[in-house]
Formats: sequence, structure tokens, C-alpha cells
Amino acid sequence: MAGITEATIEADPRLPVIRTTRDFAATPEQLVRAHTDPVLFARWVGPDATTTRVEHWDARTGGSWRYVSVHDGTEYGFHGCFHEVRPDRIVQTFTFDGDPDGVALETFWFEDLGDGRTRLRAQSLVDSFESRDAWLRSGMEVGVNEGYAKLDGMLADGTV
Amino acid sequence: MAGITEATIEADPRLPVIRTTRDFAATPEQLVRAHTDPVLFARWVGPDATTTRVEHWDARTGGSWRYVSVHDGTEYGFHGCFHEVRPDRIVQTFTFDGDPDGVALETFWFEDLGDGRTRLRAQSLVDSFESRDAWLRSGMEVGVNEGYAKLDGMLADGTV
Repeated sequence: MAGITEATIEADPRLPVIRTTRDFAATPEQLVRAHTDPVLFARWVGPDATTTRVEHWDARTGGSWRYVSVHDGTEYGFHGCFHEVRPDRIVQTFTFDGDPDGVALETFWFEDLGDGRTRLRAQSLVDSFESRDAWLRSGMEVGVNEGYAKLDGMLADGTV
Repeated sequence: MAGITEATIEADPRLPVIRTTRDFAATPEQLVRAHTDPVLFARWVGPDATTTRVEHWDARTGGSWRYVSVHDGTEYGFHGCFHEVRPDRIVQTFTFDGDPDGVALETFWFEDLGDGRTRLRAQSLVDSFESRDAWLRSGMEVGVNEGYAKLDGMLADGTV
């Protein structure tokens, strides 16, 4: 049985930023597809216990997105706009409907490690340390790690 | 002759944020219009010595924008997406073409002071103090103050 690959999730001591790093057996093109194709994205994002329904999706520079995660019948909505979608980087905004005044600026970098491996670095920037620390306390690592494990499986079986 | 109203422009000591505060003889609705109508926006934004050409404009939640400022024949492009446009707040991203990897998350709050006056509070959040301080050193206050003075004039003569 393969070991579980845990993402590194770190709080910046000087900035209201969370940084996540995770390596994948994938090309950068595959990881970009996993983040921009709504059917693929809905299959891997979030904890195992949730299902995701994409309600709006235009993954282009200047586009926008909205999806709903369903857990035990309760719906949790998220939305934002795509500032930039390019082969090495996606920049987007992120708001949870339950905290409608909160906005994060998220950046995903896709770094080609060669030999069919790619490092995903993600950064989430907000405007207060309190908001950042509340995200860290929210149990976000469960969704991150279970989601990326699902993506590992989709890469291994050729879905992505 | 009326005195010049200068905006308050402040760097946050703990966050990579610039905050600008400026009062206007306007309703919140007028200020939102000045920020969302592309013809009006192009007339007031930026220093007196520049002219602005809007190239793309969809000032709705999930929309995007692009304009070019022309100074002495040189063009400076800016673009971003509108995360949210609502009566009391606009949240958008902002990139200067000359620094294509840099992204700011900008928030504008429109606070009704009564008696036909509104306080505009603007916040620009970036992911490093170095980027923030470079903006502060760029002479941005000239564009801010000359732009807002033009907007004062457009409010006074009924253009907005």
C-alpha cells in the first residue's frame, strides 16, 4: 500500500498568508487541467465526505467561478474571479458564502520538476492575521490532503 | 478658490497594505457610478498629465476590466477582475502590465456620511512589504489626488 503524501501547510510569520506545497506525479499541463476543467475539479476538490457541484465556471483570465460543496445535506458555497490563468500560474479570488465580507487572493504555481513530476505551490493571502489563523484552525488540512489524494488517484488511473 | 482636498494615504505597519481615505460631496451611489461606468471612470482616474482609454470593462461581480493610461505617448496598461460589485463595496484585482507577476487585491468601501457626503476608503493588499513600499515610492499620491480632484469637478458640475 502506498504511503499517504501529506501537503506542507505553513503560516508565514510576517504576512497574513498560508502556503501549501505538494508534489504530484503529473505534468504541469495535467495539474492546470485539474484546476481549470470543472468536471475534473469537482471530482477531486475537498474532503472525501463532500460532493461538489460547480454552478458557474469560466477558467480564463478575467473569468469567474462558483461551486457548492455538499456535506450531509448541508450546502457550502464558494465563489471568486480568475485574475489570471496561464500555464505556470493561476491567480484567483476566493470567498466562502458563510463569510461574505472575507476575500482571499489565491495563487497556484505549477513548477515542473522533470520526470513527469510537478510541484504545486499554493498561496492564500488575506488582509488580517486573525482571518488567516481562523482558516488554519478550520480543519482545512483535511480537505487539502483528502482532495489531493483523490487527485493522485485520478492521475494514476488516467482520468486527468 | 476652494482648497485642495488631499487624500490620506497610509501604510499599515503590520500588513502589506496601503489605505487611502477621501471624503466627497457625493452620495455612495454617485461614487459607485464613478467607479463602474467606464466613460466616467476614464475621465477622472489618474494624473492630470495622462489620458485613459478603457479597453475592456464589465463592472459586475465576476467581470473584468482593462485600461491603458497614456502619458507623453507612452502607454501603461492595467487589468484585473471584479470579485464583487455591490452598493457599499467593490473588490477587484489589479496588475500593472509593467510588473505582470504582481497582483494587488483592492477593496473600495463607500460609507454614507449623510448630508450628501460619502467617505471613500480604499485598501490595496499585496503579498510583500517590498512591493507595497515600491508602490508608495512610485509617486502614486499624485495620481490619487489629481484623479480625485477631477472627480470633485465632475460631481460639482453634474457629470456624475
